Amino acid sequence: MAAFSLSAKQILSPSTHRPSLSKTTTADSSLRFRNPHSLSLRCSSLSSSSNVGRTRLMRASASSTAPVMDTSPTKAVSSAPTIVDVDLGDRSYPIYIGSGLLDQPDLLQRHVHGKRVLVVTNSTVAPIYLDKVVGALTNGNPNVSVESVILPDGEKYKNMDTLMKVFDKAIESRLDRRCTFVALGGGVIGDMCGYAAASFLRGVNFIQIPTTVMAQVDSSVGGKTGINHRLGKNLIGAFYQPQCVLIDTDTLNTLPDRELASGLAEVVKYGLIRDANFFEWQEKNMPALMARDPSALAYAIKRSCENKAEVVSLDEKESGLRATLNLGHTFGHAIETGFGYGQWLHGEAVAAGMVMAVDMSYRLGWIDESIVNRAHNILQQAKLPTAPPETMTVEMFKSVMAVDKKVADGLLRLILLKGPLGNCVFTGDYDRKALDETLHAFCKS
Amino acid sequence: MAAFSLSAKQILSPSTHRPSLSKTTTADSSLRFRNPHSLSLRCSSLSSSSNVGRTRLMRASASSTAPVMDTSPTKAVSSAPTIVDVDLGDRSYPIYIGSGLLDQPDLLQRHVHGKRVLVVTNSTVAPIYLDKVVGALTNGNPNVSVESVILPDGEKYKNMDTLMKVFDKAIESRLDRRCTFVALGGGVIGDMCGYAAASFLRGVNFIQIPTTVMAQVDSSVGGKTGINHRLGKNLIGAFYQPQCVLIDTDTLNTLPDRELASGLAEVVKYGLIRDANFFEWQEKNMPALMARDPSALAYAIKRSCENKAEVVSLDEKESGLRATLNLGHTFGHAIETGFGYGQWLHGEAVAAGMVMAVDMSYRLGWIDESIVNRAHNILQQAKLPTAPPETMTVEMFKSVMAVDKKVADGLLRLILLKGPLGNCVFTGDYDRKALDETLHAFCKS
Repeated sequence: MAAFSLSAKQILSPSTHRPSLSKTTTADSSLRFRNPHSLSLRCSSLSSSSNVGRTRLMRASASSTAPVMDTSPTKAVSSAPTIVDVDLGDRSYPIYIGSGLLDQPDLLQRHVHGKRVLVVTNSTVAPIYLDKVVGALTNGNPNVSVESVILPDGEKYKNMDTLMKVFDKAIESRLDRRCTFVALGGGVIGDMCGYAAASFLRGVNFIQIPTTVMAQVDSSVGGKTGINHRLGKNLIGAFYQPQCVLIDTDTLNTLPDRELASGLAEVVKYGLIRDANFFEWQEKNMPALMARDPSALAYAIKRSCENKAEVVSLDEKESGLRATLNLGHTFGHAIETGFGYGQWLHGEAVAAGMVMAVDMSYRLGWIDESIVNRAHNILQQAKLPTAPPETMTVEMFKSVMAVDKKVADGLLRLILLKGPLGNCVFTGDYDRKALDETLHAFCKS
Repeated sequence: MAAFSLSAKQILSPSTHRPSLSKTTTADSSLRFRNPHSLSLRCSSLSSSSNVGRTRLMRASASSTAPVMDTSPTKAVSSAPTIVDVDLGDRSYPIYIGSGLLDQPDLLQRHVHGKRVLVVTNSTVAPIYLDKVVGALTNGNPNVSVESVILPDGEKYKNMDTLMKVFDKAIESRLDRRCTFVALGGGVIGDMCGYAAASFLRGVNFIQIPTTVMAQVDSSVGGKTGINHRLGKNLIGAFYQPQCVLIDTDTLNTLPDRELASGLAEVVKYGLIRDANFFEWQEKNMPALMARDPSALAYAIKRSCENKAEVVSLDEKESGLRATLNLGHTFGHAIETGFGYGQWLHGEAVAAGMVMAVDMSYRLGWIDESIVNRAHNILQQAKLPTAPPETMTVEMFKSVMAVDKKVADGLLRLILLKGPLGNCVFTGDYDRKALDETLHAFCKS
């Protein structure tokens, strides 16, 4: 286990902010892949008259089997979206994925009810994308008026004080029940805007436009919204589903490298917990993902959304199965809370947390050493930390983990890997000694 | 319309706080009544072994037709509850109504999930009923531990700062998803505790124990929860249904007269909007209600809950029908917000608001003058205000009404009476002149 004791600082590359547009990369033939497994989800390609003649970044077949990527034009100006449906009865909604979707106003406008829209965004995203989104909402639609509220950027602002700024703006603007809230930004914006939409006038329409990999593959899908409390992450919130999620993959062009890697932690997670073929695909394609190959990113986003949509459709309120999406998150939340919100990005904390969960699974004798090594290697390839910050103590972990949402009647349930790659369990039935050993292996005190 | 210009101060009796136990009154034979109309609601009497031999305050037949009151023992120590079911599919729940229900621990305990309970109450109710409720939760049930949080009493504390005290207590007590929140108090406590339960860990179990007429006949039933914003009432909240509502009518023994009257405003409302027979019953029995006749109060509570449950079952999220429960509330909220939360009780503001809505309905030619007079008379009998405070101006009304939740795309919809007694409409299709005339008739400037 020696490799696990490397300090995260040794592994993490210095973060860069706002790089210029990513390099144009040609998709490698290794990006062709097999379908991981057959899915019950509908996955269809939307034909829009506004897209006639435009280049398609990717096409998904109706059955989601053997999608074929167009390997030639990687800097597509616009494309027909791939659609992943989240099947939740009368709360079902589509996830649109593609390049240039913000240039297709009809996609957004069909989901706006009423005449008033409030865009909730942050000070980093607003200068780049706010005008574009306002245009997408209003082009050819003069009856709609758009207000916006720009929040400070960062996990440390995901609290009640910041949330009140959204309510203040909505109420001062005299928005009514028929308004629509639009979240434009990463996971923090999506979670806060979603909770505000759930609570304003006891619930108004809500659209997600995620602009980070993290939000696109995880937080914008599934309806978990909320804010942090000083004693723990996401302790106050609601399950509240959007009208649609619009993922314009072009928005990743302005994403800092560190944010990109953070999102890939969740992509790796889907492979580990339920999709061995996807994990194998990632092992081959991590360099392409890190180089921002558009086709590779688009596929990783689509496959992640499909995995998440399937789980959420089966267990919206997290009575069991859905909890498995939290592999590494209990350890990770402890890092985020103990180390201070915003010091590490969410995906960085989750990466270290996944390594800890994998370590514990191995100590319990539930997985082979090969899975330990593969998990470690792929996270290293993604330049993610594979150990918690050196300042984290066993006591800090235990204190935060005690208020985790997965505690039930005093028993901490964890997501642990068990069996061949792609299998996990959500359980409180494990040897406490293994948890203690893992915590001591990763903490100096 | 001369009578309408009386100042509220002339009509309102000085409020008394914490009177001693109410006088023992013998139910008058005039309390016998006909069934207002046939209901689809199930209404059954629960047989509990713990109640064998105890006096029943009232019995409801299975069809809710012709309930017969026991007119002899009015100070019953305990009784089998009457049950009104709120039919909302998998979110259905019972309302238990009766005397001495807090002495029947099984009623509450069957709805507590998990081992941890948080009772949310206020500084007025806690000294009287907190110990009793803790006993009802724990007697014979040593595995359950109960925490409590005592909030300051009053509408002016129904805000985010106070709500955070509930979250702080829940999190510091390390409550988990399997805990149960119990609201013990009036409408403010029920609304805040319910919203806290909806939001804590994205939703935990929740039980309502309303201790005021207002909460028993209205706010504890139907799942509307929330807090106020400085610019308007109940602008932040959630639709969130409890596991059960337990109405121990004995708790009304300690209710101040002014609070009692405030609750009766909502009782009068049910008669005006949808239940003419109930209104006629009230016209005969208002003296008994004001004298706290237990049988009369129990019937008024049951009939009100039945009316509310039926409306909520048909329109949980207030897409139309449910809005009719807000007769007088748009004007009333303007009074509460403009005059300052807590200056007038909610029912006092609603009473004045109903008189204004009735006045406007008459100006539109939608109702007979006889309804105007009957509404006015019954509210006067209940010692409720029939005009807004003298300091309210037309501008104050218009300003607050513009942010009312019933505004849609800029159009203010109102609940107005139309047709014979017991009929109303929820509409934005009315002559604006009538609204202006009503506002000017009730405001000096």
